[in-house]
Amino acid sequence: MAGKEGPRPGGRSARVQASVHKAVRSLLSKMDRAEVTVPLIAAEAGVTPSTIYRRWGDLQELLADVAVERLRPDMEPIDTGSAQQDLQTWAEQYSEEMSSGPGREMIRDVLAAQGGTGAYQCCGYTMQQIKMIAARAASRGESFPEVDAVMDRVVSPIMYRILFGNAPSVDRVRDLVNGVMEITPPRHASARKSA
Amino acid sequence: MAGKEGPRPGGRSARVQASVHKAVRSLLSKMDRAEVTVPLIAAEAGVTPSTIYRRWGDLQELLADVAVERLRPDMEPIDTGSAQQDLQTWAEQYSEEMSSGPGREMIRDVLAAQGGTGAYQCCGYTMQQIKMIAARAASRGESFPEVDAVMDRVVSPIMYRILFGNAPSVDRVRDLVNGVMEITPPRHASARKSA
Repeated sequence: MAGKEGPRPGGRSARVQASVHKAVRSLLSKMDRAEVTVPLIAAEAGVTPSTIYRRWGDLQELLADVAVERLRPDMEPIDTGSAQQDLQTWAEQYSEEMSSGPGREMIRDVLAAQGGTGAYQCCGYTMQQIKMIAARAASRGESFPEVDAVMDRVVSPIMYRILFGNAPSVDRVRDLVNGVMEITPPRHASARKSA
Repeated sequence: MAGKEGPRPGGRSARVQASVHKAVRSLLSKMDRAEVTVPLIAAEAGVTPSTIYRRWGDLQELLADVAVERLRPDMEPIDTGSAQQDLQTWAEQYSEEMSSGPGREMIRDVLAAQGGTGAYQCCGYTMQQIKMIAARAASRGESFPEVDAVMDRVVSPIMYRILFGNAPSVDRVRDLVNGVMEITPPRHASARKSA
């Protein structure tokens, strides 16, 4: 739980966190995850192991914390000029990133932690991205489905397939996006796609 | 990988597997999962630790194997007399079981294993259940959506919410089921539900 509230930026606590996170990322880039230990991280970060245990509880919680940070989107969804295309471009990128080797490892780290706070944060990041696409659609006067509908019908099936089967193809992702966009028919088209 | 192909029933290999699985279940019922170790399991099962390492590779793979076994459905979906109600009853039960404490632990164990074979098996179990409901619908002359559509629109959102947020409410599950059942309108009804 500690360290999850977000330390005061620039404070000692924030510097410790930044340094430990950096050490984890550096070690993960150099060695297999199974070999990474708290003492190794502590040595790399220049802190004592007990600092890490006190703050994160155990290795799994720390790895989850780092994974959540890496899963935070570093850009706004690309503006393609239309809501349908915005969502499709975003969904393809999301599917590609999450199904990549590093993506899968990060999801696994986030889900392996006991608390579930990290997983909740990840879901929040994704919703924020969808909300940005929705807001842009609104500003253009385009209709757009509820954020919950996009989470259920686009994000959930992509993530389920990545976790429990094979990553969805680009065509599959397009079908999912088309499906949810039909909930709110485009303003300037009355014809429905044939089922 | 070893042990995943399913040993010959009744053979020595099958007896070792049964005994080790039983030992894991017994230990998990008595102590915290973080305290369970391969030597403890070996002692409980009456085998050497090297037998376990040789067969499962590591503790995480063994825990995943046991979790997959426990996630295998032990009954057919309840026959309520109608496809819509069959799917709804099944989905409510699925959501309840998977979001329970033991359910979450089993999913976590399955997803924590490296190979992903276990997760794939779990998805297969779920698809089998849906196929049974679909076959029953067909034998009654009821229309029913594609199995993939049920996986995308009912199973995936339930699992996503359990993993990344809060377990869906019964109402939410009902909405998901209603949504997918509308893809193929019931034969004896022409009126669509209002959106």
